[in-house]
Amino acid sequence: MRTAAAVTLGLLAMIVHADEGMWLLNEPPRERLQQHQFDATDEWLSHVRLAAVRFNNGGSGGFVSPDGLIVTNHHIAADALQKHSKPGHDLLKDGFHAKSGGEELPCHDLELNVLQSIEDVTQRIESAVKPEMSPADAFAARRAIMAAVEKESLEKTGLRSDVVTLYHGGLYHLYRYKKYTDVRLVFAPEAGIANFGGDVDNFEFPRFCLDVCFLRAYEKGAPAKVQHYFPWAKQGPAEGDLVFVIGHPGTTNRLETYAKLIHRRDHTMPYTLARVRAMEAALLQFSDRGPDERQMTATDLHRVANGRKALCGQYEGLLNSRVMEQKQSEEASLRKEAPDDAAWKEIESALTKSNAFDREFALLEQGQALPSELFSIARHLVRLAAETPKPNSVRLREYRDSALESLRFQLFSSAPIHADLERTKLTCGLSFAAETLGGSHPLVLKLLDGKSPSIRATELVAGCKLSDPSLRKTIAEGGLTAITKSNDSMIRLALALDDESRALRKRYEAEVEEPERQANSKIAKIRFAKLGRSTYPDATFTLRLSFGIVRGYEADGQTVPFHTTMAGLFTKADKLGNREPFETPVRWRDSKSKLELTTPFDFVSTADTIGGNSGSPVLNRAGELVGINFDRNRFGLVRNFVYTDVQARHVAVHGLGVIEALKKLYGAEELVAELTTDKHK
Amino acid sequence: MRTAAAVTLGLLAMIVHADEGMWLLNEPPRERLQQHQFDATDEWLSHVRLAAVRFNNGGSGGFVSPDGLIVTNHHIAADALQKHSKPGHDLLKDGFHAKSGGEELPCHDLELNVLQSIEDVTQRIESAVKPEMSPADAFAARRAIMAAVEKESLEKTGLRSDVVTLYHGGLYHLYRYKKYTDVRLVFAPEAGIANFGGDVDNFEFPRFCLDVCFLRAYEKGAPAKVQHYFPWAKQGPAEGDLVFVIGHPGTTNRLETYAKLIHRRDHTMPYTLARVRAMEAALLQFSDRGPDERQMTATDLHRVANGRKALCGQYEGLLNSRVMEQKQSEEASLRKEAPDDAAWKEIESALTKSNAFDREFALLEQGQALPSELFSIARHLVRLAAETPKPNSVRLREYRDSALESLRFQLFSSAPIHADLERTKLTCGLSFAAETLGGSHPLVLKLLDGKSPSIRATELVAGCKLSDPSLRKTIAEGGLTAITKSNDSMIRLALALDDESRALRKRYEAEVEEPERQANSKIAKIRFAKLGRSTYPDATFTLRLSFGIVRGYEADGQTVPFHTTMAGLFTKADKLGNREPFETPVRWRDSKSKLELTTPFDFVSTADTIGGNSGSPVLNRAGELVGINFDRNRFGLVRNFVYTDVQARHVAVHGLGVIEALKKLYGAEELVAELTTDKHK
Repeated sequence: MRTAAAVTLGLLAMIVHADEGMWLLNEPPRERLQQHQFDATDEWLSHVRLAAVRFNNGGSGGFVSPDGLIVTNHHIAADALQKHSKPGHDLLKDGFHAKSGGEELPCHDLELNVLQSIEDVTQRIESAVKPEMSPADAFAARRAIMAAVEKESLEKTGLRSDVVTLYHGGLYHLYRYKKYTDVRLVFAPEAGIANFGGDVDNFEFPRFCLDVCFLRAYEKGAPAKVQHYFPWAKQGPAEGDLVFVIGHPGTTNRLETYAKLIHRRDHTMPYTLARVRAMEAALLQFSDRGPDERQMTATDLHRVANGRKALCGQYEGLLNSRVMEQKQSEEASLRKEAPDDAAWKEIESALTKSNAFDREFALLEQGQALPSELFSIARHLVRLAAETPKPNSVRLREYRDSALESLRFQLFSSAPIHADLERTKLTCGLSFAAETLGGSHPLVLKLLDGKSPSIRATELVAGCKLSDPSLRKTIAEGGLTAITKSNDSMIRLALALDDESRALRKRYEAEVEEPERQANSKIAKIRFAKLGRSTYPDATFTLRLSFGIVRGYEADGQTVPFHTTMAGLFTKADKLGNREPFETPVRWRDSKSKLELTTPFDFVSTADTIGGNSGSPVLNRAGELVGINFDRNRFGLVRNFVYTDVQARHVAVHGLGVIEALKKLYGAEELVAELTTDKHK
Repeated sequence: MRTAAAVTLGLLAMIVHADEGMWLLNEPPRERLQQHQFDATDEWLSHVRLAAVRFNNGGSGGFVSPDGLIVTNHHIAADALQKHSKPGHDLLKDGFHAKSGGEELPCHDLELNVLQSIEDVTQRIESAVKPEMSPADAFAARRAIMAAVEKESLEKTGLRSDVVTLYHGGLYHLYRYKKYTDVRLVFAPEAGIANFGGDVDNFEFPRFCLDVCFLRAYEKGAPAKVQHYFPWAKQGPAEGDLVFVIGHPGTTNRLETYAKLIHRRDHTMPYTLARVRAMEAALLQFSDRGPDERQMTATDLHRVANGRKALCGQYEGLLNSRVMEQKQSEEASLRKEAPDDAAWKEIESALTKSNAFDREFALLEQGQALPSELFSIARHLVRLAAETPKPNSVRLREYRDSALESLRFQLFSSAPIHADLERTKLTCGLSFAAETLGGSHPLVLKLLDGKSPSIRATELVAGCKLSDPSLRKTIAEGGLTAITKSNDSMIRLALALDDESRALRKRYEAEVEEPERQANSKIAKIRFAKLGRSTYPDATFTLRLSFGIVRGYEADGQTVPFHTTMAGLFTKADKLGNREPFETPVRWRDSKSKLELTTPFDFVSTADTIGGNSGSPVLNRAGELVGINFDRNRFGLVRNFVYTDVQARHVAVHGLGVIEALKKLYGAEELVAELTTDKHK
């Protein structure tokens, strides 16, 4: 087994596996790709970068036609589908198909980003932070220079400009994005086939999911004309083929110190698991109340169940002595190269300090006690009024000038807010705060005001009118005066909690975040000195290139082939009584005979992915789209901490399966034509 | 509001409400009942006691014919129904009807108890415990005298004999039971109507559930002839009628000290909520895998979801300052009467001590880390071999002579054990132990053996052959030699953990249980001195008499009538799309027209109930059965700590609804005849 070997070889363990890595587009793994006889030219890299799309709500996608057509996962577009649904008209469940451009439906609050350029600004950021500064001052200085760099870039280029922290503080890159905020729904299949197998099959393989959705970017009211897009491959990948995944992996923890992983295992993870399970139980009960509730909870529930399952898999990894011994041995090799243990000790000290108040920080400042859209809106309004009059350099980071446009786009969205669902989530959050801190904790007393969680949640939701976007605008325009005068329950609550919340954040920045960042920066430099740049940073929800081999695997004594077929879908559904979550949509049952049942449906490869890669285009050597990544198998859940290709695979919808379904079942000829007509050459 | 008034009146708050109380059958509330013009004669009390049935798996029921016919809830018999099910043959889901005695199905491991007599043995127990004894010695002395009293009684009478601790140590009563271990299924409706509304409607009203099941006690292979049973009333109760509930409430915490309640709120409850949610999430995922899994998880899932909802309601109560101020004020009045604060301080000290090790105690000795039937069996086998050679007086209490017959009946049951489900539950328990104690805790290291929870669970279940009852018997007969020689994975594990587990138990007994019991005994004496016996002990899963008034209530500005009708069932099902959990069984949909839709279905009263009262007969003044208790509404969840009749109600199936359904839908004429033919008079 590779894992065991890595432990034995000690130092070698630090060297990445053959197909490992979520590589920066400006530091691509050229040599590794040459071993696959692939030449990653600048032109190729620039092309895939400009055809890749980031979904600001946490996913990936890619352009697939010169007319701004985009493919992603159904579960990434689910939020938009749900926001267009109402009782008796459920786009998420029943699917959607715009036969012509005029029928394409605008998404209320969806922002897409396309990465235009990357610039290394490490030196500029680091030079603003002086060694003699206190952690609090260092944090403020870094925040100020980052805001300044971003604002300057925005003013110069008009592009969304984000300074991205890499290697937990080892490097700073400025990412400039073209934004699309007029995005429209083109096609979505039924949830029953997009998510066939539901939570049961999530993180499993073999799979039978048509987890795709098509959207279109618009500019000035017309379909966006794009030069860079991925042509749809006419053939699927064969076993052993090299493929690329281009997308936005969200978070990994591979470079974290051993002490941090132990802290994660014994402190963070049990808390998070408990919190996610509490929310899942609350949402499930709400969802079961009836069809309307089921509809309005669907995306929340999918997100939470997915999170719970991913966390359980990660936690399994952290409890596995093989994995942990590998991490320990990797760290030992690195520490041998370091002048001293200072950086590691600083992280341990920051973790110890964080234990004293990080629950309060998470519950209050991170909003985990108040998982309510209304509260979140109220707090933004309260803070916008307080922050925007300040100079850009000293504002809380989310209110810096360069971020305000995207923030307001979200804040004033006309997406519906359901009072009943708000009440349910708020009850859960308030209860969880009490469970965590105890009923006599001052914060809990303030949150509950002597009432039980459900009574308090009912009162807060009843007293809040912020579900009306025009009221939000009025208050935002009214600034501090409007806030002070408002008697809205959520605004009053946000105001009452704000001093304490800001104090927790300041303390967290000074005692935990900044010391950890400085220590990680030192460790990154030790790593660079040892390995050069033959490594890659942890995932940061920014564009990365992964690659791997299309290959089946062995599990439970069985060989799992690299792809499934449409025939397999019907076999599985029949075997399980064709009942939710294994119920195929009526269209599929009725028109089964129209399908070529040997058509490949889903497939796997060894490429390195993580959450956030959902919707990532999977490309062949020719740069053609052969699939759409939508998941990884359970053996891949440990990839938060270590890459392995022993059994671990990411899972993608097969490009040919998509075309077969669009043609034979959905009558989407115009879409098939747009995808397959060879305009590019 | 009554609650507010109680707080103001201070001392008065200690005096029970009009309809409050779970009264001992030998200390009935005669005066209170006289206020309702009801004379609770000795003869009447003895009759209801002898017609009431305890279900040893945690429920209540009652004889309803001279031929041993028993009514209880569907959800109390669910375990038996499930154990008779196999793939494609699901008694729980589809119901069951034995048209004749020959078709009645034996329940594998169900023991029923009928209370024959109660004897106060307080003096005998207390005189064995000397003031100068250390807590550990006092605990051992009490355990020894209890075992002796029980053994003596068993030998003298042949009846199951249990010493019951009342008032948390204030009184000791010897309960003698006639046992029935040959119990057979007679009739059960479909789960879809027994549990209409599922988890959504659990602890709610209005309700539409036919939560009934009929069983028959057998003796020597023939239906048991019983002298005492409840005749089925020919008319339902009217609003304002007095009713009685006779059953076995499980646990209440009304007499616990304020410090204990705070400890419950801030220490026990968050842990338990997290544990129950973890298990529910695990079971739900398992259940969704397919029809077979759904079937084998049904009763576990119902139990866990019910527990989660009840706990949430209790926790809401503990966070409500009104409730807690009432408890505080009650305690203050009582403490004024006490010579000193010693008893209360002793409990505080015991709680502080328990914090140091009660998680380990719960996870290991109480088995919460190993929620597996196979492990539980293995541990019993290991301990039986160690304990039975010892004198009766020094054994762990569950292995005392008087308990062995019932224990062996359970242990050698041929009820099926499903390896997949065992694996799922074990994975959950092992993970939860790590979440609670941390991955480096010695107990966790021992439990996991370096593997992740799921890998460890798989290994343990694969290495265990104890699902075969004959192997269990062989090992039990082989005693210590068989245990030592066994290489069964679960037996090896139980052996490896046993020393530590016993040590935790000993420590818990000496540092927590015994000091709390002695302190509670002092407090009980102070309470008796102040209030005499005009009070009742907390629930102990022993027979109690409650009474109340059939009465609707106001909620959310609406009047909720005291009963529902069959018409309401169909209205609700139609409104919610006739979809699970609101899907009526086909029989009900197809034969709706046969039903008299104005027939009452479920009703409520103010009588005082709690979990364990499920299946309790509800009687009118004439002692006739008018309903079968199956739930309470959400306002009643706080009744663990305080009784209230403001909105709080228990919920019962209406006797006339049962007859209507049996006649019109199930063709159970023979059953209706048995219930309604007036053999008694």
